[in-house]
Amino acid sequence: MTVREFVKGNEALALGALKAGLNAYFAYPITPSSEVPETLAMKFKSPEYPDFKVFLQSSSELEAINMVIGAAATGVKVMTATSGPGFSLKQEGLSYASAMELPFIVADINRAGPGLGNLGPEQSDYFQATRGGGHGGYRNIVLAPNSVQEMATFPSLGFSLAFRYRTPVIILADAFLGQLKEDTAFPTISQEKFDAPWATTGARGETRHVLASLHLDLEDQSRQDERMMKKYEEISRAEQRAELYRTEDAEVVIVAFGVVSRLCKAAVNALREKGVRAGMLRPQTLFPFPDRYVTDLMAKGVKRFVVVELNIGQMLYDVRLAVEGGAAVDRLNRFGGLLPSSGDIVAKVEMASA
Amino acid sequence: MTVREFVKGNEALALGALKAGLNAYFAYPITPSSEVPETLAMKFKSPEYPDFKVFLQSSSELEAINMVIGAAATGVKVMTATSGPGFSLKQEGLSYASAMELPFIVADINRAGPGLGNLGPEQSDYFQATRGGGHGGYRNIVLAPNSVQEMATFPSLGFSLAFRYRTPVIILADAFLGQLKEDTAFPTISQEKFDAPWATTGARGETRHVLASLHLDLEDQSRQDERMMKKYEEISRAEQRAELYRTEDAEVVIVAFGVVSRLCKAAVNALREKGVRAGMLRPQTLFPFPDRYVTDLMAKGVKRFVVVELNIGQMLYDVRLAVEGGAAVDRLNRFGGLLPSSGDIVAKVEMASA
Amino acid sequence: MTVREFVKGNEALALGALKAGLNAYFAYPITPSSEVPETLAMKFKSPEYPDFKVFLQSSSELEAINMVIGAAATGVKVMTATSGPGFSLKQEGLSYASAMELPFIVADINRAGPGLGNLGPEQSDYFQATRGGGHGGYRNIVLAPNSVQEMATFPSLGFSLAFRYRTPVIILADAFLGQLKEDTAFPTISQEKFDAPWATTGARGETRHVLASLHLDLEDQSRQDERMMKKYEEISRAEQRAELYRTEDAEVVIVAFGVVSRLCKAAVNALREKGVRAGMLRPQTLFPFPDRYVTDLMAKGVKRFVVVELNIGQMLYDVRLAVEGGAAVDRLNRFGGLLPSSGDIVAKVEMASA
Amino acid sequence: MTVREFVKGNEALALGALKAGLNAYFAYPITPSSEVPETLAMKFKSPEYPDFKVFLQSSSELEAINMVIGAAATGVKVMTATSGPGFSLKQEGLSYASAMELPFIVADINRAGPGLGNLGPEQSDYFQATRGGGHGGYRNIVLAPNSVQEMATFPSLGFSLAFRYRTPVIILADAFLGQLKEDTAFPTISQEKFDAPWATTGARGETRHVLASLHLDLEDQSRQDERMMKKYEEISRAEQRAELYRTEDAEVVIVAFGVVSRLCKAAVNALREKGVRAGMLRPQTLFPFPDRYVTDLMAKGVKRFVVVELNIGQMLYDVRLAVEGGAAVDRLNRFGGLLPSSGDIVAKVEMASA
Repeated sequence: MTVREFVKGNEALALGALKAGLNAYFAYPITPSSEVPETLAMKFKSPEYPDFKVFLQSSSELEAINMVIGAAATGVKVMTATSGPGFSLKQEGLSYASAMELPFIVADINRAGPGLGNLGPEQSDYFQATRGGGHGGYRNIVLAPNSVQEMATFPSLGFSLAFRYRTPVIILADAFLGQLKEDTAFPTISQEKFDAPWATTGARGETRHVLASLHLDLEDQSRQDERMMKKYEEISRAEQRAELYRTEDAEVVIVAFGVVSRLCKAAVNALREKGVRAGMLRPQTLFPFPDRYVTDLMAKGVKRFVVVELNIGQMLYDVRLAVEGGAAVDRLNRFGGLLPSSGDIVAKVEMASA
Repeated sequence: MTVREFVKGNEALALGALKAGLNAYFAYPITPSSEVPETLAMKFKSPEYPDFKVFLQSSSELEAINMVIGAAATGVKVMTATSGPGFSLKQEGLSYASAMELPFIVADINRAGPGLGNLGPEQSDYFQATRGGGHGGYRNIVLAPNSVQEMATFPSLGFSLAFRYRTPVIILADAFLGQLKEDTAFPTISQEKFDAPWATTGARGETRHVLASLHLDLEDQSRQDERMMKKYEEISRAEQRAELYRTEDAEVVIVAFGVVSRLCKAAVNALREKGVRAGMLRPQTLFPFPDRYVTDLMAKGVKRFVVVELNIGQMLYDVRLAVEGGAAVDRLNRFGGLLPSSGDIVAKVEMASA
Repeated sequence: MTVREFVKGNEALALGALKAGLNAYFAYPITPSSEVPETLAMKFKSPEYPDFKVFLQSSSELEAINMVIGAAATGVKVMTATSGPGFSLKQEGLSYASAMELPFIVADINRAGPGLGNLGPEQSDYFQATRGGGHGGYRNIVLAPNSVQEMATFPSLGFSLAFRYRTPVIILADAFLGQLKEDTAFPTISQEKFDAPWATTGARGETRHVLASLHLDLEDQSRQDERMMKKYEEISRAEQRAELYRTEDAEVVIVAFGVVSRLCKAAVNALREKGVRAGMLRPQTLFPFPDRYVTDLMAKGVKRFVVVELNIGQMLYDVRLAVEGGAAVDRLNRFGGLLPSSGDIVAKVEMASA
Repeated sequence: MTVREFVKGNEALALGALKAGLNAYFAYPITPSSEVPETLAMKFKSPEYPDFKVFLQSSSELEAINMVIGAAATGVKVMTATSGPGFSLKQEGLSYASAMELPFIVADINRAGPGLGNLGPEQSDYFQATRGGGHGGYRNIVLAPNSVQEMATFPSLGFSLAFRYRTPVIILADAFLGQLKEDTAFPTISQEKFDAPWATTGARGETRHVLASLHLDLEDQSRQDERMMKKYEEISRAEQRAELYRTEDAEVVIVAFGVVSRLCKAAVNALREKGVRAGMLRPQTLFPFPDRYVTDLMAKGVKRFVVVELNIGQMLYDVRLAVEGGAAVDRLNRFGGLLPSSGDIVAKVEMASA
């Protein structure tokens, strides 16, 4: 039975994870993600969620990610949430976890600016999330919700992908989406137990599993890297997700993810009213970037893409890589916690198309 | 007067930094970068380098980068060195430093694999170095030496760029180059003092300087981000550096940086002997990526680029972004601490060109 | 119903704490105390102990004691265990906890030597335990078991005293006792809930309780110190505990606690067989030191005390303070992980009495 | 040539250490000791003190004491300063240092109360300083200045004792003395280099020295403990220091150290004016406690001692141990940052003597 609640994005993320059968949460609190642990703390020990067995506020971001690694190694459903500075501190752990192929969810509620910046929304952790901000060239699946509803459902999708591919999954949201309140439908609590034959359950008499990122033998490491490269290729083939909006006959397509895509949708409508055949491509996965959607749109006659991002230009490069010179690529960037108006977006598209 | 020494790459990096007038070094030791602090420790307090005033082995990578920030804020020449796991731990600090626009050098002696991996050479920190592994979308200048000689001279170049643009500069080398011994020419010790009117010198009666990455006002943060975006564009225009080898009449060009470019050079020679008009483009700057060299080569008739990297594919995307569909782009990847032979490279180029 | 088990002292301590209704355990493992967390980890989530709700291995001794403080502030039954180096690291926290008058148990399984020493038994943390090793002049109740049976029952006694006086209670055992296996009787699980009207339960609508060790007002601090001084005096009056062995007609009394008292008992028997009217006083509380037992013995004709300790001389001073020149006080000290034989003790008593 | 300066106690301590030839200072700042590092930071790199080569503010108290250990192991003159909470955090390190028999100075500027307490003066770290607050039963020499002049000269005495006996030396002052300003005479800078044949100088070709606190062999540890016990006995014999004031014909003697002894001196004068034959014994060493002075006074007819302390009663026990029932021992305790007036002291002595 579906339940509806009027909640903040961060609350929806927490409740969505619980509905997806969350077993353990470890994190160090950081604005603007703090409603995630707050909500989970209040639900901890609630008879409603008997599978939610561990909630722990660690004493640092480093501890949190290493606790996540330890718990995930047992094959249970684990999540952590943070924002930029904490996400940076977690990069060493994420590299280790990726190398050990551990499934879990990291939510990054992106705030503005490098350094401390401010608590406004930005999308400037795009590179860090999609390229593996840590060392050693791994890739994590990155999901980009643009509504409280998706904040609620992506944890379930995230666990599903994490266990299917044995990989960390990042949910990249932003300060605006974290605070936005919307009427949200929650599914019933998932009973799904993912198969984790590789897990270190400690069960006596069972096969011993070792999860390690150390491969002193060069050939071993090479084989492991090759296996991961193939996994990333498979993910790129199989898991591209995107929303298309009024693109059927579009000549110009706005590419935007997350919170700013909501303004782009309004801009598309305004452009359509002005007679411009505009549409929108909204990536729901940032890695894999939905480049097949881009090439399909080009095949259907799109001549121009306008990338709208809340950063100084990051997804832009994934669009250009997908387009490969086959269409014009323009950009509109806002940052610092500021959002463009839909009027700004309309103007940008008109100017670019002129 | 130039001095010649037969030294390891890591030693050359340390000595090169001293010759460039290094004032302070803070780091936590990690293989395969440890000869850097070892060499500097032995030269500390030596009358030869009176400007080398602070050498400190911190108790963690996090401490090291924050000490670097503190020292760099005073306008002196500061360096740290590390390898992948430590580089990841430094990403939060690098984000802060980039936001504060602090000039210093971070050397990353890239080892193999995500996680612990092994001590073999790799080039898998390319994304992390060139895209800003930390949060918030900054860019650092990345220098890529391919010889002990360049290990010796790039610190001087690095400080010069760091102070000109007020930005961290990363020297991305690898485990092989760190251990390789070559006859190396060292310049005399630089007396150059870079102008740092923004520095917090603590001098009484002077203008007060505040270096912070916190911009609670959204417009402030936005202006700061815009300034940095423009700086990155300027760096991209002005600071592309690359070596071209036998590209005058080339039809196929290998793109490779760092240690593997040495094998590519041999492969070019072998291909030339076989009648293949091959050449090599060796980026010395990874950010800015030398895309102008790529477009120049295309303008001169290059039809195909073969990207050879010690990772699962990272610079590949910068080459594809430069080429934008205007030429074929192939790839040869080795990883795990393994290198291709020049024969492998020759075979790859021949097969790609067939 | 009493259960009997053949267990190690450390296991008995863990099981005894569970039988006493332990709610939470936080610790960093250290030899020779590690069977305590091992035993508790295995019983965690067991339906046998539904009140044992939190088991956490912290990432440092400092974290452990601060987690203990946080949990104890809610009025539940909390324990931690450690050995010398860890006990030292916990002293700042113990000072805070004593100032906040928090009830909990710290077990110190004393190993040999200052510094790292070795894993043999010693009693050299006597001063640290009885004088408050931390700053600011607090006193904690110190219990000294000398058998696996007392390891099993002292946690219950410890919680009872801790809550009655709102104070940390230290169980000072040693490496030998921790490893010794004996047939042990365990009581049924305690259902006793101690009254903790001062606790910070977080219950809405209730009186707000603040537990703090900061008293910026000098008069406040002075009143608090005075209250604690009176509490310590009351504890000294009311809670002295000791075992007397064959002291009825004794002229010479051995004073010994913990493991070495077992050898002293044998020595008393041997001395009696030789016609020496020897007895033993075994303090079960080290703070309060059972000085009333000493003065009683003197009143009954004891002319000489021989203090036998596994350290360079610590309880000796408490005996001398109790005796105040009214009888001879001799000493036998062994240390470094070594124990005296009962023959050594007999010889010492004979020589002293000669 | 002696220099006179009008300085605070904390400044005098810093300058006194410099005059004594301080080579290295490591500490984490804590009120009310912070003028010590402030003064030293200002003198660092000053040509006046060419031997003062290392000044480092560590990132924690634990780091500070471990850096002190590392530096002291090389045989140079090292100091750190702290207050109660920091002194507690240093206890593990102090135990290691004592076991390794490393010479250095730790100044503890005692603040009020266990826990955070307040910034007023107290003498409540007496037990912690004199009994070895850390594990394993070591003893450190403890010096107790009662004037800014002694704050200035005790570092020199401290280094001398530290190197003579290879032991940490604690200077136990208090918040009042740290802030008090007095006209102070400073000696010329000491050129004395203490012999440290045991030090780990790293010099090539020399005998290898290992400084460790680990003695896995029980006999080894036992021999080491015995050696230390004998050292402490030798220190107790040879290094008792105290000031006697008007005790020649005294019947009642006040025992007081540090700041409160100044008030006691005034009380003695007031008592003398009233015809009471009062005097004062002021221990300058707390370990060794000057018990020989006590027994000498008893031999000369003193019938009563009144112990005046800024704590709930600690030195009291050392006096009682020295007196051993041979005279009356009374006490006056003030705490919480409060001091008694000399009138309070007079009244106490009169009442006790009545």
